[in-house]
Amino acid sequence: MPDLPKHVHFHEEGPREGFQIERGTFPLADRAALVDALSETGLDEIQVASFVSPKAVPQMADSEALFDTIKRKPGVRYDAVWLNERGYERARAATGVHITGRIALYASDAFALRNNNCTAAEMRARVDGWLDRYAADGVPMERALVMAAFGCNFEGSVDPARAVGELVWAWKTCRARGMASPRLYLADTMGWANPQSIRRAVGLLREALPEAEVGLHLHDTRGLGPANVMAALEMGVSHFDSSVAGLGGCPFAGHGDSRGAGNICTEDMVFLCHEMGIGTGIDLEALVEAARLAERIIGRPLPGRLMHAGTLTAYRQRRAAA
Amino acid sequence: MPDLPKHVHFHEEGPREGFQIERGTFPLADRAALVDALSETGLDEIQVASFVSPKAVPQMADSEALFDTIKRKPGVRYDAVWLNERGYERARAATGVHITGRIALYASDAFALRNNNCTAAEMRARVDGWLDRYAADGVPMERALVMAAFGCNFEGSVDPARAVGELVWAWKTCRARGMASPRLYLADTMGWANPQSIRRAVGLLREALPEAEVGLHLHDTRGLGPANVMAALEMGVSHFDSSVAGLGGCPFAGHGDSRGAGNICTEDMVFLCHEMGIGTGIDLEALVEAARLAERIIGRPLPGRLMHAGTLTAYRQRRAAA
Repeated sequence: MPDLPKHVHFHEEGPREGFQIERGTFPLADRAALVDALSETGLDEIQVASFVSPKAVPQMADSEALFDTIKRKPGVRYDAVWLNERGYERARAATGVHITGRIALYASDAFALRNNNCTAAEMRARVDGWLDRYAADGVPMERALVMAAFGCNFEGSVDPARAVGELVWAWKTCRARGMASPRLYLADTMGWANPQSIRRAVGLLREALPEAEVGLHLHDTRGLGPANVMAALEMGVSHFDSSVAGLGGCPFAGHGDSRGAGNICTEDMVFLCHEMGIGTGIDLEALVEAARLAERIIGRPLPGRLMHAGTLTAYRQRRAAA
Repeated sequence: MPDLPKHVHFHEEGPREGFQIERGTFPLADRAALVDALSETGLDEIQVASFVSPKAVPQMADSEALFDTIKRKPGVRYDAVWLNERGYERARAATGVHITGRIALYASDAFALRNNNCTAAEMRARVDGWLDRYAADGVPMERALVMAAFGCNFEGSVDPARAVGELVWAWKTCRARGMASPRLYLADTMGWANPQSIRRAVGLLREALPEAEVGLHLHDTRGLGPANVMAALEMGVSHFDSSVAGLGGCPFAGHGDSRGAGNICTEDMVFLCHEMGIGTGIDLEALVEAARLAERIIGRPLPGRLMHAGTLTAYRQRRAAA
């Protein structure tokens, strides 16, 4: 098995990703209970909510109250998403939001125009403004992510050199400013990646910046998520964004539903790692229970597989006891 | 990308696997319509039904009528499962069942006892009887499969050498009898495989019998199906059993439900192959439509991902036309 990492880190995005994509709203107590359950699993980064327009995303209108409600587990970073100045200020004013410098770029102009009403080049200019702001506020840089890195529903295939170019720009810009080097994330925003394109893009990025840390933000839109993770693990990639229970995906969504599909499923991918002897620091049984809690809260079957079948631990223990 | 095959063959088991696992029965006309839709996709082997006890499996009581009803597409082999003499005779008497020599062995005594009321060694003796029968009837040998090749809920981890040993026995026994050499299948009956154990077992089998054709029968019980397929493709494995729409899996099943989970999903895995430039001879759009038909017949969301998100073809065509 080539170059498997010894340890893999998962950035849990389920609470934010999952409830944001749902049509209804869910009781704050339930959402806090899910974050609290995740806090007890060994996950050390949990994305709790987003600070975005309550008109556009009513599900996230009470993010401040959610941050007031969750229990704090020492060693866990509770983070959030913001897209503009107002959201950033709200996040900074809220209770205990872990504020780190995160920037997002586009490998597709068509998607940038649709999502941010600017071109990819204009997005870089905006990011420059964010870097000013983070530097002024003493916020440490943590990650740069390029969206639609593997393909775009509005632009078609994406040249991996273009996606990599955006990340190289981010890296060099941070270095030129004397800021910390961000981890560099390729995001398969719309589910275009396959194991070959993962390897190609990660390989290009490694060639361009051998010293950079590489992460992946993958969605399991078309069933290739686990195969893509496997290809990345074989290249030594050790940072993944993921969602407990595969939250964010909706098996009831109509074909072509604009909500898209969820992130790769945290507990299924933790299981993949553990079965191959890769450490994650996560208590898989506790994580499966958190996934089942998420399913009870959402009230319909969620895409995660392991949560329905159970892990192999009980079978192995039964055998060992026999 | 190491050693990807140029062409991959899928043996479609959805119609049999899918309807057999469901609690209810479904109209014969619907099941025939699904087989007919699959016939038009380029799949050339479709497992239509099983000839088993109608008391034990009432869903398959009308297999003869189903074989009478389906349309025949030239070049497509319509096959079936039988487990005993009576089933074999029924299959031979039914209309147009493609009869080939298939034998199944066990890598776990505990599972063999539970499933067949015999040990793995006793199963070999029974298989010897089947080989006599196939030879007498002029039925060509096609495949030998070893169940629980990667682990067993009743026995725990399985030594890959044991699974490989059963297949080597089958191969040598067929050779000694002057029969055709069967393709050798490792079956992950209960969802224990991971990419590393796939490589280990396939590697051992290749070392033992470099000239044998290797196939995999995988279930996506715990979310590792696509990663396992990827690991196998990288070893040049080019024969997979699979089920349209991931039929056989049940997202509504309780945890630890004894019905288990479905095979790997045919169209998701065909998509995986096509995206990496591997040919399958399958019309993916037609296959996705067949998967959606299966979902309408079953009447609840099925595990396949691609059928819900759609392929990338329309996005690419839209872009090419722009």
